[in-house]
Amino acid sequence: MKRSLGRRLVATPSVVWIVGTFDRNDRPNLMAAAWAGICCSRPPCLAVSLREATYSYQAILDRQAFSVNIPTAEQAEVADYLGLASGRDVDKIAACGLTATPSEHVDAPLVEEFPMSFSCALIHTLKIGLHTLFVGEIRDVQADDVILNEADRPILSMLNPLLFSAGEQRYYATGDAIGPAFEMGKKFLDDIDPLS
Amino acid sequence: MKRSLGRRLVATPSVVWIVGTFDRNDRPNLMAAAWAGICCSRPPCLAVSLREATYSYQAILDRQAFSVNIPTAEQAEVADYLGLASGRDVDKIAACGLTATPSEHVDAPLVEEFPMSFSCALIHTLKIGLHTLFVGEIRDVQADDVILNEADRPILSMLNPLLFSAGEQRYYATGDAIGPAFEMGKKFLDDIDPLS
Repeated sequence: MKRSLGRRLVATPSVVWIVGTFDRNDRPNLMAAAWAGICCSRPPCLAVSLREATYSYQAILDRQAFSVNIPTAEQAEVADYLGLASGRDVDKIAACGLTATPSEHVDAPLVEEFPMSFSCALIHTLKIGLHTLFVGEIRDVQADDVILNEADRPILSMLNPLLFSAGEQRYYATGDAIGPAFEMGKKFLDDIDPLS
Repeated sequence: MKRSLGRRLVATPSVVWIVGTFDRNDRPNLMAAAWAGICCSRPPCLAVSLREATYSYQAILDRQAFSVNIPTAEQAEVADYLGLASGRDVDKIAACGLTATPSEHVDAPLVEEFPMSFSCALIHTLKIGLHTLFVGEIRDVQADDVILNEADRPILSMLNPLLFSAGEQRYYATGDAIGPAFEMGKKFLDDIDPLS
């Protein structure tokens, strides 16, 4: 039985994304973001929402670019740390032993140790409320060979991305494969009574 | 070793969201969407991107509202079907045996059988390219008691949402809990050398 919880942010899980930026002194910084997702297929774009108070916010506006890096469930401690400290106060990359390399495609750093990275050019900024949504056009994807299938597509069980349950403030791993998309639901196609 | 895959949409996993709308004839319709995520904490908002060709696209604009409903991994067949057929041609809700009830908060239908539903008022529309991003302000959340903890927050292992791996076109379940957020990374706080 479902019941109303009211006008609240009760989130579905998010994949943990690590946003990479250069600040005005060319110092790379990383932060964990959960309010994020793919938002367009052509051109390929993703969206990530940040609070204006974050150090990354101004860096994205200054450089008109950012990266998104996907840590694995095994990298949960480092990913969590990147959401605990601010790049305004500390060199987070040094503190947790990561390696940041400038993207060849946009003015943002990529994380070597995470198995997948997106180089994004800022194309839209939408102020919503506490958070501002940044739309980045994906100019390049870098991925580790070990997570890719023959078609160079990531295999989720190999990528094993870290999931964040905001309500519980807890991380989860990715689970087992269930079945093929655009296939499992075909049984209901037989039952269709076309609208006249 | 990472290598460049170029300017491509290589997606991280998405949580499968089922978007609910009323059309101009007050007929409820549902579609599966993967380009989606929470996008603001205050006011609580979520974003979902749809192609203009979908039947739901015009319905959201007409009614200035939509719902988002979260199926579980056990409901993968129904969820997949909702991404296979178009509400322009068939009554998908009848074909797969779901129950749609009008939200008391916005002009959109909620799915009874899915354990969590969001009632959203459209507050922003951003045309990006093939997809247009709709920002919905969450006016109410409905959730099944069995997926909630004492604080009325969803327990991810109980919700067990369906994950979509776009590159493989395959569904996955949610995996095991890994550890507490804003806690696991504290070990790196000791190593911090504050910026002067």
